[in-house]
Amino acid sequence: MQSQLIIRILGILLMIFSVTMIPPMGVAVLYKDGGGLAFFLGFLISLLTGLVLFLPRKKLRGELRIRDGFLVVVLFWAVLSLFGAIPLYLSDINNLGIADVVFESFSGLTTTGATVIVGLDDLSHSVLFYRQQLQWLGGMGIIVLAVAILPMLGIGGMQLYRAETPGPVKDSKLTPRIAGTAKALWFIYLGLTIICALSYWGAGMSMFDAISHSFSTVAIGGFSTHDQSIGWFDSSRIEMICTIFMLISGVNFSLHFASVRGLTIEPYTRDPEFKVYITIIITVSLIALLVLIFQANFEFSKAFRNAIFHTVSIATTTGFSTDNFSQWPLFLPVLLIFASFIGGCAGSTGGGMKVIRFLLLFKQGAREIKKLIHPSAIFKIRVGSSSLPESIIEAVWGFFATYVALFFIFMLILMADGLDQVTAFSAVAACMNNLGPGLGEVANNYSSLSDLSKWVLAISMLFGRLEIFTLLVLFTPDFWRS
Amino acid sequence: MQSQLIIRILGILLMIFSVTMIPPMGVAVLYKDGGGLAFFLGFLISLLTGLVLFLPRKKLRGELRIRDGFLVVVLFWAVLSLFGAIPLYLSDINNLGIADVVFESFSGLTTTGATVIVGLDDLSHSVLFYRQQLQWLGGMGIIVLAVAILPMLGIGGMQLYRAETPGPVKDSKLTPRIAGTAKALWFIYLGLTIICALSYWGAGMSMFDAISHSFSTVAIGGFSTHDQSIGWFDSSRIEMICTIFMLISGVNFSLHFASVRGLTIEPYTRDPEFKVYITIIITVSLIALLVLIFQANFEFSKAFRNAIFHTVSIATTTGFSTDNFSQWPLFLPVLLIFASFIGGCAGSTGGGMKVIRFLLLFKQGAREIKKLIHPSAIFKIRVGSSSLPESIIEAVWGFFATYVALFFIFMLILMADGLDQVTAFSAVAACMNNLGPGLGEVANNYSSLSDLSKWVLAISMLFGRLEIFTLLVLFTPDFWRS
Ligand SMILES: [K+]
Ligand SMILES: [K+]
Repeated sequence: MQSQLIIRILGILLMIFSVTMIPPMGVAVLYKDGGGLAFFLGFLISLLTGLVLFLPRKKLRGELRIRDGFLVVVLFWAVLSLFGAIPLYLSDINNLGIADVVFESFSGLTTTGATVIVGLDDLSHSVLFYRQQLQWLGGMGIIVLAVAILPMLGIGGMQLYRAETPGPVKDSKLTPRIAGTAKALWFIYLGLTIICALSYWGAGMSMFDAISHSFSTVAIGGFSTHDQSIGWFDSSRIEMICTIFMLISGVNFSLHFASVRGLTIEPYTRDPEFKVYITIIITVSLIALLVLIFQANFEFSKAFRNAIFHTVSIATTTGFSTDNFSQWPLFLPVLLIFASFIGGCAGSTGGGMKVIRFLLLFKQGAREIKKLIHPSAIFKIRVGSSSLPESIIEAVWGFFATYVALFFIFMLILMADGLDQVTAFSAVAACMNNLGPGLGEVANNYSSLSDLSKWVLAISMLFGRLEIFTLLVLFTPDFWRS
Repeated sequence: MQSQLIIRILGILLMIFSVTMIPPMGVAVLYKDGGGLAFFLGFLISLLTGLVLFLPRKKLRGELRIRDGFLVVVLFWAVLSLFGAIPLYLSDINNLGIADVVFESFSGLTTTGATVIVGLDDLSHSVLFYRQQLQWLGGMGIIVLAVAILPMLGIGGMQLYRAETPGPVKDSKLTPRIAGTAKALWFIYLGLTIICALSYWGAGMSMFDAISHSFSTVAIGGFSTHDQSIGWFDSSRIEMICTIFMLISGVNFSLHFASVRGLTIEPYTRDPEFKVYITIIITVSLIALLVLIFQANFEFSKAFRNAIFHTVSIATTTGFSTDNFSQWPLFLPVLLIFASFIGGCAGSTGGGMKVIRFLLLFKQGAREIKKLIHPSAIFKIRVGSSSLPESIIEAVWGFFATYVALFFIFMLILMADGLDQVTAFSAVAACMNNLGPGLGEVANNYSSLSDLSKWVLAISMLFGRLEIFTLLVLFTPDFWRS
């Protein structure tokens, strides 16, 4: 472990992060909402801590190795989330305690979008903007994490994507390669955000709401500036725009990159994960449509709007809503929550287990059946035109089983803390899948939970966001042995 | 597919099965309960159908091949369960419909132990005896299925046990090998039943209850002759005996065989699955004990009795009860249901996914973490002293993921039929794991469910009992191609 080097990097990250507290200060000045001081203090604390960590190690040089990567990634999210909670704490919103602001900050940076705040519409513009920005920054982090870093660390079978990553592939040094990839992806991320914001604005949102919601849309975050979420606007145009950008953001950003670079849609049409992603969304939308028409007795246009919007929102793990879907009839709420377990595509800002893993699990299941019928034949698993090494299949299985096991452990802890089964189930699903809204007690917000539950859920968000293993590996003694 | 040969076997099975309707006739005569006719008709129908299938193919000879094995196993349980429902239907119990008696019969033969009958204490002795006997016969089937047949078919990684199976191993012909193994195992099964019945009798049960409960104990079945289950006896001695025999029956019968043959306990002490099995039971018992003392405010002796009895009963998937555990506080009911997913040891009469698979999933998860830390090292998964081929690991993963997927599909179907989430979750768990009692609406019995739900649950029992793939494989077109 190159501890000194890692501390140096953490110092740099904190200094950069401190700068992100300046825009909310600007918003506070612009709207004269009096919220500037909290962000200024947050800025100072982050900057000074960063300097304290960085300056003594200013001249330190060295290359990060793979193993250091795990620690840097976990510290990135954990430490920034903690410092990100400071301005929220100082803003003194409805007397939020430490567990509340930490939950909110983790929920922001992990793009989960679960909130403990009731009464968003009454908050100051600066705080609202800051929450949205946290998600946007989290999304930037995730893009790089998912496309460049996790594949290199070999997490949960995502080395599958190693060959498709833009940038020099065979370079074993972490930093230069990530930098190159990051720049290209952020360009796309920024471009999408701008187009999304302009579209929202054109459809009738205020400039403030347009920018705010573009942040949480492309980040698959789901934070809103209104308690009623997207439903507040009551506009089918806004819902359509939102749906389109959620769909786009749930796709592997490598595909966007390849598409933009080649000015062709071919990268999408020949990507197996993309096809399954679209198929899932269409299938679940249709089921939702039928249930809403025949069981909830919605008229067709209302059913159509609601079915598509919520399917895309929940299946991509964004978590926006226009209706209280937890009250929809039959299995629909649970089906949507199940869809969030599949989540977005790998290399997107979406959460969940990722479509590609689901596809691989399905293919492996089918292969096991074939093996039973033809015991002596050998079947390879193919994705598109390439056949996968067994080690990737095993990594995906390991991911799946660990995900399920961790899910049950978190659920039992929440039930030990007094939550009922439906609430505990959906709260863990919504947080681990980085979805946001749950069912039962947490259908609207998480304010009624105890501090313990909030801490546990904040940690489950981090587990989900870091694809379980990045964080889990730190809990093994083996990792800490030189 | 050797259809004619399979029909011939089915005929023989039905004729043998018809004979099992004679003992209940004897019980009817003994207790003069007037229930004899239903069983006599059931006997006639089964026997005649068997003869019709068998006689035209009397002289047919041939050897079953592996692929025929799937069909024979599925038909064995499905057809016998359907014919087993006939005497229940004819007995005209509280006006049970077709879905009810089919559910009850499947529940008996799969040793699930879920019941749709309310008012067991008022039933005739012959019907009560018949239900218990169904479980006992189901248990006999399972022993042979689990120890001899499934490993040969290669289901879900159970070929792991191929080498340890008693009898000639390298013989590729199905029938002679199974016959030899079956004889040895049934001897042990019968012996256990007799000792169990004598113990119950000695502890104060009537002879009728002693025999009845010994049937459902060694079969890990859970049917009782009283609505209150074992709680009816209110005897700590009976609970202790029950606990011991559930524990024994949850162990791989190959171990019992090896132990009896060598007159040594060494087979147990060096079996990794046995050790994990005991560890799980002790751990869950301790947690249950603590919750019952500190949250349910049970006094120590009551907490102790209840914690151990219910942990063993649910974790082995027997499903006997002495208290309404679904009302216990916090996460305890859900924890027990989770434990039933792990279930008994492979090669036992227990249900669930089996301890050995759980152990392998855990080891694979640990291996994935090790691989992340040491990317270039190669780790083999060991169970005891032998290292496992990757194909077995993959089969176990395939089993796990398919189990989970099927679980969610069944759960959604039940919710579509109007069940609430907790009931749907626990009903599918209780039936697929061949456990019996659930939570919510199905905590005591399944009588309130619709016919559709009962059929779905009966099928889920069969899926669970046949380790998913034996049945699933029949749904693939590939299987039916010559
Ligand atoms: K989200
Ligand atoms: K049972």
